[in-house]
Amino acid sequence: MTFDPSISIAVLGGGQLGRMMIQSAMNLNLEISCMDPDPNAPCKNLASHFVNGDITNYDEVLAFGDVHDVITVEIENVNVEALEELERRGKKVFPQPRVLRTIKDKGLQKEFYLEHDIPTSEFVFIHSKEDLKDYTDLLPAANKLRTEGYDGRGVQIIKTEADLNKGFDAPSILEKFVDYAKEISVIVARNEKGEISTFPVVELEYHPEQNLVEFLFSPSEIDATIRANARKLAEKVITAFDMVGLLAVEMFVMKDGSLMVNECAPRTHNSGHHTIEGNITSQFEQHIRAILNLPLGNTDTKGSAVMINLLGHPDHAGTAKYQGIDEAMNITGMHVHLYGKKITKPFRKMGHVTLVGQDLQKLKETARSLKESIKIIA
Amino acid sequence: MTFDPSISIAVLGGGQLGRMMIQSAMNLNLEISCMDPDPNAPCKNLASHFVNGDITNYDEVLAFGDVHDVITVEIENVNVEALEELERRGKKVFPQPRVLRTIKDKGLQKEFYLEHDIPTSEFVFIHSKEDLKDYTDLLPAANKLRTEGYDGRGVQIIKTEADLNKGFDAPSILEKFVDYAKEISVIVARNEKGEISTFPVVELEYHPEQNLVEFLFSPSEIDATIRANARKLAEKVITAFDMVGLLAVEMFVMKDGSLMVNECAPRTHNSGHHTIEGNITSQFEQHIRAILNLPLGNTDTKGSAVMINLLGHPDHAGTAKYQGIDEAMNITGMHVHLYGKKITKPFRKMGHVTLVGQDLQKLKETARSLKESIKIIA
Repeated sequence: MTFDPSISIAVLGGGQLGRMMIQSAMNLNLEISCMDPDPNAPCKNLASHFVNGDITNYDEVLAFGDVHDVITVEIENVNVEALEELERRGKKVFPQPRVLRTIKDKGLQKEFYLEHDIPTSEFVFIHSKEDLKDYTDLLPAANKLRTEGYDGRGVQIIKTEADLNKGFDAPSILEKFVDYAKEISVIVARNEKGEISTFPVVELEYHPEQNLVEFLFSPSEIDATIRANARKLAEKVITAFDMVGLLAVEMFVMKDGSLMVNECAPRTHNSGHHTIEGNITSQFEQHIRAILNLPLGNTDTKGSAVMINLLGHPDHAGTAKYQGIDEAMNITGMHVHLYGKKITKPFRKMGHVTLVGQDLQKLKETARSLKESIKIIA
Repeated sequence: MTFDPSISIAVLGGGQLGRMMIQSAMNLNLEISCMDPDPNAPCKNLASHFVNGDITNYDEVLAFGDVHDVITVEIENVNVEALEELERRGKKVFPQPRVLRTIKDKGLQKEFYLEHDIPTSEFVFIHSKEDLKDYTDLLPAANKLRTEGYDGRGVQIIKTEADLNKGFDAPSILEKFVDYAKEISVIVARNEKGEISTFPVVELEYHPEQNLVEFLFSPSEIDATIRANARKLAEKVITAFDMVGLLAVEMFVMKDGSLMVNECAPRTHNSGHHTIEGNITSQFEQHIRAILNLPLGNTDTKGSAVMINLLGHPDHAGTAKYQGIDEAMNITGMHVHLYGKKITKPFRKMGHVTLVGQDLQKLKETARSLKESIKIIA
């Protein structure tokens, strides 16, 4: 077959995920256009065409997608109706709009799991804050906005009845806390031919308050059977969605070794950043391979890896400066990825660091001390 | 120390080397501007600022460099006088203009080796074609233009007296063929603090007619003492030049195990492309670290690697199409890098492929068959 790099790809969203996708797509001469509401989005100077626009607006998304061959996303909160119209016009839209419609609404997403016999935690629909008091038997629980939650926003923890007033007065779900042993993620890819490939399981450690991934460990140190089950479960989910593209499936490992799906993202994901240096094929290249119907790449690890999210210092906002990066560059196997964001804000995702080596325990120790020594201030 | 990514970097040249430098510089939020005479140069859409200009013109180079903090090159054939003026104005210019002045002239380069007791092959200066007939005792030999030779251009092989008419009627050198066992390359980096770091030795296999690297093998399979000597020799050369930046030192390994320097390039180099996936730090990141006076990265190999240059098919010129890339994507550890060139020409460097794995012999076999199956046609 002859590979024609002149195929044009449109990405809704122009943040760090789009930026790392462009970085990978350069290897295939692919030109990527991005649309983002932020005129200084991370992709601004790197996209072949950057459109400063509203990705939730029907007309803007339609006009943007209509001049490209393949349309994809780096965020779920996009105008699905426009993507459906683009699909009707014969464009390749991956993930498919119907998948985005289900996943972008945490309520529909949870219902989908129930319908497809995919294990997930107990939940109820909440229409307004008033409803919460009817479900105190579910506490402690997480109250999650059905739409527009992202990077720790749109989630409130309701531990006891005293916290009920923290809940959202908006369509949301209340999700019973599960007493899990570990949080893991499996990224799975599928192309139009129906080929499926999963990445090895990783473990996630969250920031205690911000609901943001703080550390990622690859490979996971869980039992081989559970690992195999997790990869099978991810395959089951992408098959159930009948989707093309990349799907990050976040799961809980329960104390009895069983698995529950926490949530999914039909795109490249924070839990796959380590794959750039840590795996044979990166999640960004795999996404491109999947949406262009190319053969999927081998996902094996090249060793152990720890990823650290670099978040804006809680007390700083303004033009970003990076303390401790120079010194960190002395560490063998340390790879820094800054996201091209001029302005830092408390807990804003400004970049990540991946440590690659053979001894996961040593990498974890290095990571915990590195986390303290790098500060993003204004 | 606080790392400030707002430092601005100017690159003279906007080809594949600049493009892969930008790809790496993205990880540090660094903005890179490029100047290139080709309005469709590979960096055009990826540089923060792309200036279509003449990099050999004093005024254009001065104006371009003057609005940046650090100036570097991806090709030697640039206006050195303008770089000297920029240096006088307090700009960081790495490699230093005096190094470029010596290296861009193959005659001065050879004289430099003699002066600094760096082993190199026997040569004479040629002023015009007429001179050649006085040096038939040097045959077989290579007649090389003193300046402007690049990628196989500017070199004529003079095997016997019958070939004398193929020689250049221009300032050139005539270099006696050396009966070497292998061609190798060592890339060495040096920062302003004087820290020096060499990459492991690689072996090069040239296209039989085009004087272009066809295959690169990493690590080299030569004796450990020769390897150590080669790294020491590269350190000696960069120290003799007292230069900051990256220096590729191409060498011959003689049949008795001694070394001769063939030629140098004070920049990222074709013999370092495999480092992107094959070594802990890539040559592109190392170059950036060196010119910004950051700590140099660890250069260890991550396994074995073979790099194949993808050259335009000898019978095709026009809009490039890539045969066999899809199929090649089934090979585990195959990484393709296309250079963003719309137009292919016979033997034009259009991209490269790196195969990474543990067994160098198997990688070599795969590489030789892959070389036949990928065709860049119009």
